[in-house]
Order: sequence, then structure tokens, then C-alpha cells
Amino acid sequence: MVPEQLIGPELRLALRRLAKAVVIVTSKHDGVRHAMAATAVSELSIDPPSMLVCVNKSASMHPVLTTGAPFCINILHVSQEAMARSCSGVLKGEARFETGRWAQARSGIPYLLDAQAAIVCDHATALEFGTHSIFIGRVVEVHLAGEIDPLIYMDGGYCAAQALGKS
Amino acid sequence: MVPEQLIGPELRLALRRLAKAVVIVTSKHDGVRHAMAATAVSELSIDPPSMLVCVNKSASMHPVLTTGAPFCINILHVSQEAMARSCSGVLKGEARFETGRWAQARSGIPYLLDAQAAIVCDHATALEFGTHSIFIGRVVEVHLAGEIDPLIYMDGGYCAAQALGKS
Repeated sequence: MVPEQLIGPELRLALRRLAKAVVIVTSKHDGVRHAMAATAVSELSIDPPSMLVCVNKSASMHPVLTTGAPFCINILHVSQEAMARSCSGVLKGEARFETGRWAQARSGIPYLLDAQAAIVCDHATALEFGTHSIFIGRVVEVHLAGEIDPLIYMDGGYCAAQALGKS
Repeated sequence: MVPEQLIGPELRLALRRLAKAVVIVTSKHDGVRHAMAATAVSELSIDPPSMLVCVNKSASMHPVLTTGAPFCINILHVSQEAMARSCSGVLKGEARFETGRWAQARSGIPYLLDAQAAIVCDHATALEFGTHSIFIGRVVEVHLAGEIDPLIYMDGGYCAAQALGKS
């Protein structure tokens, strides 16, 4: 049994055990492009086609998405670890777009051409909770590229997926 | 460019490329235990410690969580593929608790002793969107067990994680 004040640290330890796909969330506001690596992303529903992403209120992406800007969830390939690191704080602002091949979705926001999948969303709704907001997007455009071999983050490091034998 | 009516099928293809940890969500209502395999789960915030899970309104778990019942997110170990299958529809109701070692959280709900982590939550709030609801839980209890080696679902099959060499 864990005293209440230790739940945060205990939760951090538990989350090291939760394997997560690495994505880059992209958006654009007032003509400025933004990109942020993220793992707190989930499919929501197919009808309507929708996704969610949780963003810390302290992240530079937060005020962008709060304006109701469209956003894209770019699912990284295992070869794109360097991009994940660049968009996790190594580079800032527009410098995050200096590597990778970027294209523009119909709404004008950038998406990563070589991402395994780029899921372009219009802002649907948002919900604040504690230090974060959950942004819910309605999927309006989908791009697929390359083989299925995603970049995974787990236990503080990057991993690849290896298929299990049939049981 | 994809016509709007094809976005759902396109999104399904994209989601095959999103690697996801496999968890079993457990709860209890009116003395009856419930378990459901899930992948639409995310960390939300550390302050307050919170998690979210997206549940289809057609799932038997949905009315349980709608009552405001506490729930637990049990992160499966790579060896627990059979439990994931059992809780994905192979078995129903109480039969899902016939395998695995189960214990009871302080709130009385079941958690899986051999899960890599069991994150016990009180219901905080919920948001309906389309065919699904997002249930947000405040983490009240955390249990860890065993080595970090999670079960991953991707491209319609189960996988293990393999660490990448240092870049």
C-alpha cells in the first residue's frame, strides 16, 4: 500500500512498463509550424474517425492546439529515432523541420511524408485535466508510407517490435 | 486525397501501424467482476496522477464504468498473450478470471498480481465522443511485478519489444 504522496513516483515507474508508439504531433498557427514528439496518444473511435492526444499545459504545442488549430499525428518508423529526439527538446521551433521530408495537408498543417502513417485531424473538442489537456481530433486525411515497423518507447529507451510466434 | 466516406477504413489501416501496449481493464459493479482487454489507454498527467481509457459503448465494460466504478489498468507481460485473447472475447464474464492470479485493490476491484503493473484508479470524469467514452481515472494505488517485457499489439498480431542499439 502506497501513501498518497508517493503515487506520482509510483505511477512513473509503472509507466516505464507501458510500451508506447512514438509519434510527432504537428500543427501550424499564425503561419508558424510546430512539432512535438509524444507518446500519450490513442485511437478513440472509428465513427466518427477520431484520435486523442494529451499535451502538457507547459508545452509550446499547448497554446497552439488551444486555438482550435488542426493537428497531425505522425507515427514514426523505427529508423526515425533521431527525429523523435530532435522533437523532444534537442531542437526548438522551426529547426525541428530541418530534417525529414515534410508535406502540407489540405488544412495547411505540416505532415511527415516518411512517417509510417500521418493522421491529419481537425480540432473537435478538448478537455482539461490537471497539468494536461486532452485534444480530440476528427480525422480528415490519412497518409501511409513504407513498411510497418514502428518506433516504440519503453523503460526510458527506444525499441523495435518483434513478432511473437503463433501460439 | 481520400473521400470522406473512406476515412474510417483508411484510419484502420493507419492504426495497424500504431504499436500499442496490451492491458486488461478490470472493474467491479454490484459484486460482479469485469475484465476487458484494451489498447486505447494512455497516461494523462502525473499531477494529479491520472490515466485514461477509451471504451466502446457496445462493450459490456461500458455500463460498468458509466456508474463511476473504480477501474484498474493491468499492463500485460509478453507471456500473457493467452490472457489478452481470453479477455478479447474468447471467454465471457467471470470465466475471464479463471486463469491468472487475481488480488483485490482497496476499493474492492480485482487486479492481476502478475501484470507488469496494475494501476488502480478511482473514477474522475468521463467524456462521450462518437461510439466511445473516454474514462479518466485518478490513480490511487500502483502495483509492480516482474521484469519489464511488455506485450505489444501491432498490425493485427502480438509482439515483444526489442531494445535498439545506442545511436
